[in-house]
Amino acid sequence: MRNLFADRINDIPKSFIREILKVVDDPEIISFAGGLPNPDFFPVEEIKKASIKVLEEDGSNVLQYSTTEGYLPLREYIADRYFKRQGLKINPEEILITNGSQQGLDLIAKTFLNEGDGVIIEEPGYLGAIQSFSFYRPEFFSIPLLEDGIDIEILKDAVVKNDCKLFYGVPNFQNPSGITYSEENRREVAKLLAESNTIFIEDDPYGELRFIGEDVPSMKNPLEDNTILLGSFSKIVAPGFRLGWVCMNKDKIDKVIVAKQASDLHSNYFAQRVIYQYLIDNDIDQHISRIKEAYGRQREKMLNSIRKYFPSEISFTEPEGGMFLWVSLPERISSLELFDMAIKEKVAFVPGSPFYVNGGGKNTLRLNYSNVDEAKIEVGIKALAKVIKRVINR
Amino acid sequence: MRNLFADRINDIPKSFIREILKVVDDPEIISFAGGLPNPDFFPVEEIKKASIKVLEEDGSNVLQYSTTEGYLPLREYIADRYFKRQGLKINPEEILITNGSQQGLDLIAKTFLNEGDGVIIEEPGYLGAIQSFSFYRPEFFSIPLLEDGIDIEILKDAVVKNDCKLFYGVPNFQNPSGITYSEENRREVAKLLAESNTIFIEDDPYGELRFIGEDVPSMKNPLEDNTILLGSFSKIVAPGFRLGWVCMNKDKIDKVIVAKQASDLHSNYFAQRVIYQYLIDNDIDQHISRIKEAYGRQREKMLNSIRKYFPSEISFTEPEGGMFLWVSLPERISSLELFDMAIKEKVAFVPGSPFYVNGGGKNTLRLNYSNVDEAKIEVGIKALAKVIKRVINR
Repeated sequence: MRNLFADRINDIPKSFIREILKVVDDPEIISFAGGLPNPDFFPVEEIKKASIKVLEEDGSNVLQYSTTEGYLPLREYIADRYFKRQGLKINPEEILITNGSQQGLDLIAKTFLNEGDGVIIEEPGYLGAIQSFSFYRPEFFSIPLLEDGIDIEILKDAVVKNDCKLFYGVPNFQNPSGITYSEENRREVAKLLAESNTIFIEDDPYGELRFIGEDVPSMKNPLEDNTILLGSFSKIVAPGFRLGWVCMNKDKIDKVIVAKQASDLHSNYFAQRVIYQYLIDNDIDQHISRIKEAYGRQREKMLNSIRKYFPSEISFTEPEGGMFLWVSLPERISSLELFDMAIKEKVAFVPGSPFYVNGGGKNTLRLNYSNVDEAKIEVGIKALAKVIKRVINR
Repeated sequence: MRNLFADRINDIPKSFIREILKVVDDPEIISFAGGLPNPDFFPVEEIKKASIKVLEEDGSNVLQYSTTEGYLPLREYIADRYFKRQGLKINPEEILITNGSQQGLDLIAKTFLNEGDGVIIEEPGYLGAIQSFSFYRPEFFSIPLLEDGIDIEILKDAVVKNDCKLFYGVPNFQNPSGITYSEENRREVAKLLAESNTIFIEDDPYGELRFIGEDVPSMKNPLEDNTILLGSFSKIVAPGFRLGWVCMNKDKIDKVIVAKQASDLHSNYFAQRVIYQYLIDNDIDQHISRIKEAYGRQREKMLNSIRKYFPSEISFTEPEGGMFLWVSLPERISSLELFDMAIKEKVAFVPGSPFYVNGGGKNTLRLNYSNVDEAKIEVGIKALAKVIKRVINR
């Protein structure tokens, strides 16, 4: 009797966050568990205007089939913004429009990974990437994150011992930890990867959302062609469109385009046209600064509340941007157990262990501040502190 | 030195049609090569109204992240339409919204196929499916199409000798041939597949576009749980949205949902909401009858022109619906060679050989009539006839 399903389907970790989000659906719960942008900043009125405009001006075209690569003016806009923001010279031909950066991850894995190929990931690591890559059955090597980036000593050991093809990382305001790689850390990572000929996948969904400090140059600067860039409109415009992109040099992107074509022909063309229209008719920088201003305040409120209410033995990251911060409890405390108690106190978070592919992290947890208003942040952190104290003191 | 790309990428046939469409981009060429629906029937004004409505009534939600399964009312609408049109009882939980049916193909292959698994396909077969499946490295068994469906004798031989997991077919107005499986043919296919425990993937993008004869029951009637249904809004509303669906029983769809989540989290939610609003605010049956009426006339014009201008030794299918018909030239004539000559006479078609995964079909070609108006159809067929006669008589 043959197996009904492919073997690869057995390797897939169930989405723990998805399960958690079901539990916290109760509107009475203050949830720091999600990873959603704040919908108050979705440009609904402007998107409406853009939708009307593209339909009135070019209706039959925007509803027709289109090219796999994506709408060229949108790719030119993205290339142009890379240059303006980061001084990166990118040819629009090197950009492929995808369904959010999640599809970028799937297409990269599909194009590059044979079963058993080595993939370096951060620890704690982004679950969506782990899930995406797992379908192609690589061997994961997870490297701990320190305060200023990846642990270089352990990375060195890993690249010397193992012939890794890819390194997936989120150097700006990482999900889940909120950590940013320093410029020095990036240079050291680049040096090691250049020696081992490993491709760095720079996922940067939050890079535009920096509220403190200065931008740090992309890994593409030191690594050049051995870098794949992933970007997304989800956090700066709206995630419901599922529009993102991948960017890599021509010989690589041509293969990824074939994978995209086989996967779904092309991304929603109407949405590409609407978002492009929105981008050229509005001041996106002003829009992003409003988001940053709000998230910055919410992050400040969360850090202040943590300092005020949490016992001093609890450590936490202080992100310079993005949507998440990371809490480490004393080693003996299980955040999974804490989760059940917290839910009873009407506050939720994501326990840290699922972000560790090789086990560990049982005493850690992720907090999201982008989608909770300031008043609720204080109430929620206070409730969480109460539960933490109860566990510590028992 | 490790290989840069995954081995699977080497198995992928280059999209021949895509290359051809580049050649025929010249507006002076009358193209029967494409596979596009006629944009004159895109409901631009109604889509505009629907877009405005969902943004005004529920703006922050329609732009936010959503569930992997897709918008429940849209899935209920699809289930309801299966019941009304075909008497099929389908639970909305058994439906997953995808980026066109092309993504459905990719997700099915991802979920079910191990390397080397047997997959039965039609000959000539749909290129998008062949391309999608090829990434998962199955073994293809192609079974010839006859006038009333699949060749049962050859199919019997294939299912007895090989343990095939999937059979991919387009029983209504097949792409590329225009052939429809008769009710008797479907019963015989179902009987063979039930014995061999092979899953039938019924891809039905054109099923609603029947202009002659009576609907034939879905393969789900005789085969039940061993059927996967694929559907799409591309041919009845608009392809630019990239919205389709897959439908299969609960234990299977749950795995496919995990694959979808890893592939791109969910399909464009804004587009799902717009299309649902469009469907409930408009008379879709009336809309579809306008499309059918036009395509029926165009098909009639093409058949009449073929009868009038083509030499009598040329055979061709007479589709009862859909967008394509299939032409067989005398064995000695190569349609690839004919293509180059036809382009010089400003008329284009798709040569048939790429639709044969195991070789053959060199004397066949596909003609599309949905996207060319009646006057041009006559001019184009006349020009093509001239070229055919020249080749036959040399």
